[in-house]
Amino acid sequence: MFSTHATNGTAIALKQTKIYGVTKKSDFSQKHHLLRFKNNRTSKDMIQCRAVAVETFRPFVKGEKFQLDDVIEAQQFDRDILGAIFEVAREMETIEKTSRGSQILNGFLMSTLFYEPSTRTRLSFESAMKRLGGEVLTTENAREFSSAAKGETLEDTIRTVEGYSDIIVMRHFESGAAKRAAMTANIPVINAGDGPGQHPTQALLDMYTIQREIGKLDGIKVGLVGDLANGRTVHSLAYLLAKYDDVKIYLVSPQVVKMKEDIKQYLTLNGVDWEESADLKEVASKCDVVYQTRIQKERFGGRADLYDEARGKYIVDRDVLGVMQKHAVVMHPFPRLDEITVDVDDDPRAAYFRQAKNGLYVRMALLKLLLLGW
Amino acid sequence: MFSTHATNGTAIALKQTKIYGVTKKSDFSQKHHLLRFKNNRTSKDMIQCRAVAVETFRPFVKGEKFQLDDVIEAQQFDRDILGAIFEVAREMETIEKTSRGSQILNGFLMSTLFYEPSTRTRLSFESAMKRLGGEVLTTENAREFSSAAKGETLEDTIRTVEGYSDIIVMRHFESGAAKRAAMTANIPVINAGDGPGQHPTQALLDMYTIQREIGKLDGIKVGLVGDLANGRTVHSLAYLLAKYDDVKIYLVSPQVVKMKEDIKQYLTLNGVDWEESADLKEVASKCDVVYQTRIQKERFGGRADLYDEARGKYIVDRDVLGVMQKHAVVMHPFPRLDEITVDVDDDPRAAYFRQAKNGLYVRMALLKLLLLGW
Amino acid sequence: MFSTHATNGTAIALKQTKIYGVTKKSDFSQKHHLLRFKNNRTSKDMIQCRAVAVETFRPFVKGEKFQLDDVIEAQQFDRDILGAIFEVAREMETIEKTSRGSQILNGFLMSTLFYEPSTRTRLSFESAMKRLGGEVLTTENAREFSSAAKGETLEDTIRTVEGYSDIIVMRHFESGAAKRAAMTANIPVINAGDGPGQHPTQALLDMYTIQREIGKLDGIKVGLVGDLANGRTVHSLAYLLAKYDDVKIYLVSPQVVKMKEDIKQYLTLNGVDWEESADLKEVASKCDVVYQTRIQKERFGGRADLYDEARGKYIVDRDVLGVMQKHAVVMHPFPRLDEITVDVDDDPRAAYFRQAKNGLYVRMALLKLLLLGW
Repeated sequence: MFSTHATNGTAIALKQTKIYGVTKKSDFSQKHHLLRFKNNRTSKDMIQCRAVAVETFRPFVKGEKFQLDDVIEAQQFDRDILGAIFEVAREMETIEKTSRGSQILNGFLMSTLFYEPSTRTRLSFESAMKRLGGEVLTTENAREFSSAAKGETLEDTIRTVEGYSDIIVMRHFESGAAKRAAMTANIPVINAGDGPGQHPTQALLDMYTIQREIGKLDGIKVGLVGDLANGRTVHSLAYLLAKYDDVKIYLVSPQVVKMKEDIKQYLTLNGVDWEESADLKEVASKCDVVYQTRIQKERFGGRADLYDEARGKYIVDRDVLGVMQKHAVVMHPFPRLDEITVDVDDDPRAAYFRQAKNGLYVRMALLKLLLLGW
Repeated sequence: MFSTHATNGTAIALKQTKIYGVTKKSDFSQKHHLLRFKNNRTSKDMIQCRAVAVETFRPFVKGEKFQLDDVIEAQQFDRDILGAIFEVAREMETIEKTSRGSQILNGFLMSTLFYEPSTRTRLSFESAMKRLGGEVLTTENAREFSSAAKGETLEDTIRTVEGYSDIIVMRHFESGAAKRAAMTANIPVINAGDGPGQHPTQALLDMYTIQREIGKLDGIKVGLVGDLANGRTVHSLAYLLAKYDDVKIYLVSPQVVKMKEDIKQYLTLNGVDWEESADLKEVASKCDVVYQTRIQKERFGGRADLYDEARGKYIVDRDVLGVMQKHAVVMHPFPRLDEITVDVDDDPRAAYFRQAKNGLYVRMALLKLLLLGW
Repeated sequence: MFSTHATNGTAIALKQTKIYGVTKKSDFSQKHHLLRFKNNRTSKDMIQCRAVAVETFRPFVKGEKFQLDDVIEAQQFDRDILGAIFEVAREMETIEKTSRGSQILNGFLMSTLFYEPSTRTRLSFESAMKRLGGEVLTTENAREFSSAAKGETLEDTIRTVEGYSDIIVMRHFESGAAKRAAMTANIPVINAGDGPGQHPTQALLDMYTIQREIGKLDGIKVGLVGDLANGRTVHSLAYLLAKYDDVKIYLVSPQVVKMKEDIKQYLTLNGVDWEESADLKEVASKCDVVYQTRIQKERFGGRADLYDEARGKYIVDRDVLGVMQKHAVVMHPFPRLDEITVDVDDDPRAAYFRQAKNGLYVRMALLKLLLLGW
């Protein structure tokens, strides 16, 4: 998946034209809302940041403009683009904290097309849009309510909804749905999670949080804890961390939900030093970041005994906190059950509520970049 | 239904006062939000465009102001009012394409009161309102969620909701519900579909699309294809087409879902030349518009065999496209299953996505006319 | 509950610091959105209007500033604060009737977090926010859709949602949930109903309606009719009326749903003259306000016979209206079934639709007070 297109930028760019419909995308006459604000930019001084293959298309040059068309999967970002997004996210943090709302996206309309519910993610995107002066069309449960129930294809829905708005934020229950939507739409699409597939904005906010909390990404030591087999957040995080130098990853999980081989191989191939450990405390004492995750009951079928055993095995509590370094932090993608005890919340190293808030800044940054450009 | 009020304008207008509560409606002191923007108009130079009987109330004089109070059913519009609405819709198209949102409805609040889900229609109305600077209160599923579940009457709900907003867009599962709402409300009501009853904004956008695509409505040749027995869009379209001169309608449908007698009689009485045909290709070669519709599975009960037979009978594909004239178009009210094959989509004569987009312009026009007047 | 904190203001205020987390609350550095607009006020010239114990904290001095932090339960308001809120509500009425929307809350974002549906209340709050230029993030059914389904605590949800917005309006199915939310949140929380617990904004709008309709609250005569055992609106109303002088309350209810002893004792202790009566007409002839309520079927289990008997016993119809004084009014918290006949609606003394509208003004006032201060 990640190495296939790591050869020749030009060739891949051409391939992408077919696969992702870049030709249609760049037909700016159809993107009238965007056209009006984009026509002062030429494609020559942009790096096309299409889903997939972005990192190999053309090297990102600091200071050079780039154009983000869609946000589909974590792999589409290289460290330069990540750095650029984080820079904008930091600006957004300032905007949100010091003014009563920016108006830079005034007149823009975002559709949140959620085929499965995710209140947290939806509210975060809608808040991001409104904090920048934009407006929102909401669908809390498109699966039940839309024409989808009558058998309409996703493509037809997208071609209708793109007529009503300037950007689509989509959550879907099927892996790959976001790519299909992006290939169809003449307006930007953001993947807000597609089934067991990708949830790239979560990966971005996790990376942004590490950068903000620890001050660096190169040379970082991260302990991934909990359900490493099924959690898509830890997978995306592992992929993105592999883009940085001297990264060390500790894997701490119950036996039944261990990290899968393909990701461990990917880490090795990309020069990431990783090791598995059964000793959370020891790992915690060495790490900059303890990234805890929820054991997902739904993955255990009827085996409540296995679930209970896995769930209770690695808990971040005040004891774990006690061995952690002063500068280190605890992160969690939420929702949390009891894998972090509530008495940890008041410690300044509990970064998970700040992490949730960072989701707002990263999403504000993406909306700004997709609608107004760099 | 349609001819009963085609006799004496004055008599009917008086009757309407009782039936539709025009007296209450014109009590502007209750319509404070509207009052402020309406008091420069006198009732003398308006044509009352009430639901029903409008066409007979007073002849519409070009250039003269008219007042649209509610949008309840297709029959309330005559060709002069249709022309005026389409003129405004065309202006809206310009606004939407050339500016980052108008602010003419700034400060106005629309309630979308949907007693049954229809994501497409809801988003279209909400987009229309927001593109004009207005705001929206949304109810995606009023039937389950509202006081209706506790037995509240529609009238009580309307009298409450009108206190919170300036205009109500209502979708309901019962035929006639929109009329009841309009009779109760002191603010404008738009019918966004009431059960098997009316869906007038769909009819308006269909007519506007024909006008936009073909450039005329008089002398038009339209093929209505698919489920002509149950589809309310084809019925409304037939009624509205009958207001124009030299119209020819071809009816192409499986035997089990043929156009009903009352509508055929209505067409004959109103001077529309119509004929039934079993040959889609021959019809397609003659028409300006091929209006395809979905065969609705839910109408066939358990008879899957009958449904499958009907569904496969008339498909618009590249073969049909091949015999169509260069200026002709294919339309569809959506959602579509396979009654138009996807390889038709790229042909410039595939007008159905433009048609969906026209729904936005027509709804923008109606909101403008209802809230600000002509 | 209501008398425990009626002794020593200082002691209770200190206790509240722990119970309600006032310390955290007053940590303005965390309330950045509010901070920007609050820093011209000092805590010295404010009366802290925390949930509970407010009335005993410090006497409200007319003209002095006070700070409303949350709206959790009816008991938190004394008559001075009620008077101040009603004064602002009256200003809101003027704003809503004479302008096309105020912009005083422009840039503020309200989250409506509804764990159980209540379309009427939700739309009223959202209209209030939008009429003042604010924006809204909506959750129509947080119970099913949110992380709550995965076992997240209310506290975690609140700490996330407060990162996305400036104020939270919450409806919950559990009594006490609003207090927990207010204790957690660093932004204001409004209780829009928590199960069998409180619904303080309903109580406020009821009181405001009596004040507006009759012109006074001292010396008022109110008949509470219908389900006095289960209706939380009549309980809150009784508590608030007890803050005024020379109040007379008549209790008219079917035997099975009579007012409970604790509330009758409370009325007696607080100097309210009350009596039970079985004669609605006689009561109606004496009262300033006939406050009718719905008999709730769900309270009768399978006993449809008892329900039907209770439901038909006290109906406000034109006969009852006939004996009422000219200045008196009929109120109802809605939804209504047939306990007020529809032929009463047109009488000017039918105040229930105006009462529903007053909910808008009271909520506008609360949003203004919570976000901008007095």
